[in-house]
Amino acid sequence: MPLPKPVYYPPFNITRSSHSIITSRDLEASLDFYEQVIGLVLTERDADTLYFRGLEEVCHHSLVVKRHTGEHQAEAIGFRVYTEEELDKAEHFYRSKGLPASWIEVPYQGRTLLVNDPTGTPVQLCATMPTEPRMYTNFQDFKGGAAMRFDHWQIQTPNVQEQTDFYAEMGFRVSEYMVVGDKLMTTFMFRKPGTQDIVFLENPGPRLHHFAYSVSDNNSLIRACDIAGILGMGDVVERGPGRHGPAGVMFVYFRDPDGHRVELFCDHYFLIDIEVEPVEWDMTKPGLSIRWGLPAQECWYNETTAFSGIETKQLDYERGPLSTLETYLAEKAKARAAKAQ
Amino acid sequence: MPLPKPVYYPPFNITRSSHSIITSRDLEASLDFYEQVIGLVLTERDADTLYFRGLEEVCHHSLVVKRHTGEHQAEAIGFRVYTEEELDKAEHFYRSKGLPASWIEVPYQGRTLLVNDPTGTPVQLCATMPTEPRMYTNFQDFKGGAAMRFDHWQIQTPNVQEQTDFYAEMGFRVSEYMVVGDKLMTTFMFRKPGTQDIVFLENPGPRLHHFAYSVSDNNSLIRACDIAGILGMGDVVERGPGRHGPAGVMFVYFRDPDGHRVELFCDHYFLIDIEVEPVEWDMTKPGLSIRWGLPAQECWYNETTAFSGIETKQLDYERGPLSTLETYLAEKAKARAAKAQ
Amino acid sequence: MPLPKPVYYPPFNITRSSHSIITSRDLEASLDFYEQVIGLVLTERDADTLYFRGLEEVCHHSLVVKRHTGEHQAEAIGFRVYTEEELDKAEHFYRSKGLPASWIEVPYQGRTLLVNDPTGTPVQLCATMPTEPRMYTNFQDFKGGAAMRFDHWQIQTPNVQEQTDFYAEMGFRVSEYMVVGDKLMTTFMFRKPGTQDIVFLENPGPRLHHFAYSVSDNNSLIRACDIAGILGMGDVVERGPGRHGPAGVMFVYFRDPDGHRVELFCDHYFLIDIEVEPVEWDMTKPGLSIRWGLPAQECWYNETTAFSGIETKQLDYERGPLSTLETYLAEKAKARAAKAQ
Amino acid sequence: MPLPKPVYYPPFNITRSSHSIITSRDLEASLDFYEQVIGLVLTERDADTLYFRGLEEVCHHSLVVKRHTGEHQAEAIGFRVYTEEELDKAEHFYRSKGLPASWIEVPYQGRTLLVNDPTGTPVQLCATMPTEPRMYTNFQDFKGGAAMRFDHWQIQTPNVQEQTDFYAEMGFRVSEYMVVGDKLMTTFMFRKPGTQDIVFLENPGPRLHHFAYSVSDNNSLIRACDIAGILGMGDVVERGPGRHGPAGVMFVYFRDPDGHRVELFCDHYFLIDIEVEPVEWDMTKPGLSIRWGLPAQECWYNETTAFSGIETKQLDYERGPLSTLETYLAEKAKARAAKAQ
Ligand SMILES: [Ca+2]
Ligand SMILES: [Fe+2]
Ligand SMILES: [Fe+2]
Ligand SMILES: [Fe+2]
Ligand SMILES: [Fe+2]
Repeated sequence: MPLPKPVYYPPFNITRSSHSIITSRDLEASLDFYEQVIGLVLTERDADTLYFRGLEEVCHHSLVVKRHTGEHQAEAIGFRVYTEEELDKAEHFYRSKGLPASWIEVPYQGRTLLVNDPTGTPVQLCATMPTEPRMYTNFQDFKGGAAMRFDHWQIQTPNVQEQTDFYAEMGFRVSEYMVVGDKLMTTFMFRKPGTQDIVFLENPGPRLHHFAYSVSDNNSLIRACDIAGILGMGDVVERGPGRHGPAGVMFVYFRDPDGHRVELFCDHYFLIDIEVEPVEWDMTKPGLSIRWGLPAQECWYNETTAFSGIETKQLDYERGPLSTLETYLAEKAKARAAKAQ
Repeated sequence: MPLPKPVYYPPFNITRSSHSIITSRDLEASLDFYEQVIGLVLTERDADTLYFRGLEEVCHHSLVVKRHTGEHQAEAIGFRVYTEEELDKAEHFYRSKGLPASWIEVPYQGRTLLVNDPTGTPVQLCATMPTEPRMYTNFQDFKGGAAMRFDHWQIQTPNVQEQTDFYAEMGFRVSEYMVVGDKLMTTFMFRKPGTQDIVFLENPGPRLHHFAYSVSDNNSLIRACDIAGILGMGDVVERGPGRHGPAGVMFVYFRDPDGHRVELFCDHYFLIDIEVEPVEWDMTKPGLSIRWGLPAQECWYNETTAFSGIETKQLDYERGPLSTLETYLAEKAKARAAKAQ
Repeated sequence: MPLPKPVYYPPFNITRSSHSIITSRDLEASLDFYEQVIGLVLTERDADTLYFRGLEEVCHHSLVVKRHTGEHQAEAIGFRVYTEEELDKAEHFYRSKGLPASWIEVPYQGRTLLVNDPTGTPVQLCATMPTEPRMYTNFQDFKGGAAMRFDHWQIQTPNVQEQTDFYAEMGFRVSEYMVVGDKLMTTFMFRKPGTQDIVFLENPGPRLHHFAYSVSDNNSLIRACDIAGILGMGDVVERGPGRHGPAGVMFVYFRDPDGHRVELFCDHYFLIDIEVEPVEWDMTKPGLSIRWGLPAQECWYNETTAFSGIETKQLDYERGPLSTLETYLAEKAKARAAKAQ
Repeated sequence: MPLPKPVYYPPFNITRSSHSIITSRDLEASLDFYEQVIGLVLTERDADTLYFRGLEEVCHHSLVVKRHTGEHQAEAIGFRVYTEEELDKAEHFYRSKGLPASWIEVPYQGRTLLVNDPTGTPVQLCATMPTEPRMYTNFQDFKGGAAMRFDHWQIQTPNVQEQTDFYAEMGFRVSEYMVVGDKLMTTFMFRKPGTQDIVFLENPGPRLHHFAYSVSDNNSLIRACDIAGILGMGDVVERGPGRHGPAGVMFVYFRDPDGHRVELFCDHYFLIDIEVEPVEWDMTKPGLSIRWGLPAQECWYNETTAFSGIETKQLDYERGPLSTLETYLAEKAKARAAKAQ
């Protein structure tokens, strides 16, 4: 499990995770959820597309929801590069790797390069978007969780080591990671200062586990839940509020009306300096992803979003059973029964 | 299910729920939990007893923890009456009902009357306690959830109708209640302005389900959980943070090291006026006790504390199966399996 | 300065401070301010009157704003009594004192007795109001400071000792008080459990200094200020956010468009027990009303609201100069100048 | 007032503002203030030096306080560069400009280059420091405002245009700026994503106006003030809590026992993308630096910290009178007097 050596001068400069493109069978339901519960701002819509941004964001969109009648899908994830010339360097990088890279037209985005990483994840790269007003001090218009800013994705990939090595080449560094023995199981990788732009999790993939928006504080997390509840959407809260061990983050996970998972969180830390060693977590030790409260239910682990037209590759080994809320409760019941005898 | 008629001029004046007396097999563990996680102030201790109060409380104690080697028990709950003469009226009231009432010596309490309500619940009544400094602005010393003030108990009782009628005679009013059909299943009863001093729940009893302290805000609830987690006591969080329908309260339930359940909450409302109708909740309708998030696990419903020396009476009818986190997850798994076929 | 002896069994039962009736030269401006900044709910309006309640309140109104073209005035303050029969006892009490007491018709209130206390303050007493839905969990509709519940007034009166003695006879108890030497200058008096229903301040009067609504937490205080600012009403914030010594309260004071002063606060403590001694504050010692931050500007001390048709009586002695923000800054400038020489 | 053209590929890579070195006449008093009120962690101390870091920081220090008997001074400010080789590029850059640049030994820092910018500000550059544990989830040990992370300085400089042009050459970009007519008066410049690493204010300089730590939320700001107050240090709160227009930040300004000004703040926004236009503020329009609440007192504008051994250059033009709390109150008094006539 060698962590890849950090690349301080990468071949092109990705600055941050930028946007997600997902599908919906019912745009009105999506609009309701993302506006009322998550608190995103609707920048623009047309007959078949919703463009959202966070309250703090000036970019035209960080979430695009497209009408699609079948199973819910993710069309692509998008990164920002620093300048237009970085896009050309990116094209060169991907082509030199023998990976797909093509220029596409995307509404409300600057020149956009569509690539696939080695696992097949569709990735858009662009340098600019039209700008819109920041709404982060329009307190009187805040809704739901008042989501401030798109922050990261969690992506399932069948080989975390390979995926991590590839992203490291592009300058992504590892802030925290999880192992079983000496096998790398999860990596938190970042370009922007902070703990993560993208998290890789060893599981059948490429599949989108969740995308995450930052909020200002705990109150925003609870407000999102409360408003979901009061609007009769209380069952969108899938997990939390709770605190992760890794990155120390306070989180809530929601499922949107189509089944996409979105996280609101606060309390990540800031990270740039190169002398800081990545934090290792042993997945076989308790207290890893839950410092308090109940474990995540099975569906949190197993229900994820496929990328449009990309085949999900299975793991090439047998994975042991998951520790879930269900197994936790079963063990507790067993212990009670044993004690009652 | 007639709700009892409110008694505006009761035979004696109970002003508020006052204190709880519970047992512990390990006082050091109790001290750790109630100080570090709940954030109570230790007023005094001797070899076998801990006396705690909330940060906002001037009374000597609102929680007494006594060393006891057996199963964890509640020794009594305690109410305050307004003046010494109300105590004498209380004695008269209980004796006229043929209920036990005796004067007892209790350290750090004024003249104390010990009574049993018709279900057998041991209840202390007193008018005064020695006072201690309020610590509620000693922000630099706040710990854990910074519990401010003891507020209420939830008590299981095999006949909520009878229990409610009896407490109504003493001037307790119903703020909110739950029914199945026209059968009264839960009543929130109050003397102090607010939603509850005592909650009765139809279940084998008398048994103490939980006692509850108020906190200042959501942040305090989450701080309590976070500190429990960081101190390696994360599994004390049994349920929540979450929001109840009844009384609109934001809650977290903890299990202390002996198994006693303690709630921290915020956001109750204030209630004095007599024209306000009690709020009815239909227990057969969803969204009752959870507006969002997962249902409570089975143990939250079934694990409670006996009162020392008081026999638990069973229900005189067969109760249907509970809706719990366990049944919720089982149904979800069944639905998934059906869909997968 | 003898504090009056508490009267535990008063001649009639006032339960709480209930409502304020004030005038406005511009109802639309008032509506904007109380809805958008303070966060009150408009229960009802007609051509010349606005009826507001807090988010947590079921009573029809706790604030009535009446159109009036002249100088802004307070028409009356209102208390609740427990039952209708307490109203009759109240009438008897006031008449026996030779004080005005008459039955008046007030829209959206039960039978209402209008009295004047010995200083002349017009006071309405009623036992009931029509009820309206509690809005305290309609989080998606919260505005401004999300004011929860009317709590208290601060009233200027030319003789605090007399006023306090009179209210004590009606069962009001003193929670905290301020003295200069052995002269009583300010008293916090309460009927509902807590620190205050009404505060008396020795100053020309009777005049209304402010009325106060409770909020849930610090965030609500700051939200009110932020929304005032963003809506271009930032200068309504007259003082704070800050923390008082007495009652330990976190406060912000606003001036409404007519000049009435309204306080939003959180963090009062709960008080019922009779063994608790009132807290004394020496007005000549620093740190009294400000634990941190700057002193209040002069207008906070000097600009108050007259009661309609009631003459303001002056103090019968010469009051020394006030310590204000202005004097504080002048002394600081003087010290700087001295140092610079 | 041409804003300098952003330099996307600067001659060397400064990554962030890193640390401040200030002097104190009384290290014990400094320790008290920075630990108890600001909530910094003391990493290390020796007889004459205190090394502090924020709860979220792994770097050995972000604040160094050195014993010094005279007037309080700032010894230097410090930036981080990305790698060791950037340090060498930095040396080259400064020397090529004819500016002082020398290698110095600094305890607990990697190789350190000391330079002076054209105004004379002493600046340390280093690439690494020894690391210490992050304490940001040690909630039980949080003190005061729980300062998380050093963020920025405000530096007075007699020519903002020149200073801004120079820093722009090093890759600093302008997020927001203030003008009077077309004269640049204040610039917020950043290297790390966000609104600012360093703010330049046209005033005699170079002088340090304040250094600023980020906190998690509003509650932390108020906790800092409350703890200052309860510990008898309430007068350290010089300004706030309040909200700035520029950068939308919620702030409190404190004066440490020696007179250094430190800001705690939350709610900056994130900024990397190059298409985002800097935000312009017209200093002659109201609502600029205060959206609500009172203006800053004169001392906030006039009392600043000199850099050790660096002469303060005056403005080469006559500056009009400041709008301060003092002038605001004087105008208000004048208006009252006029109205009273
Ligand atoms: Ca925050
Ligand atoms: Fe995440
Ligand atoms: Fe409860
Ligand atoms: Fe007040
Ligand atoms: Fe600043």
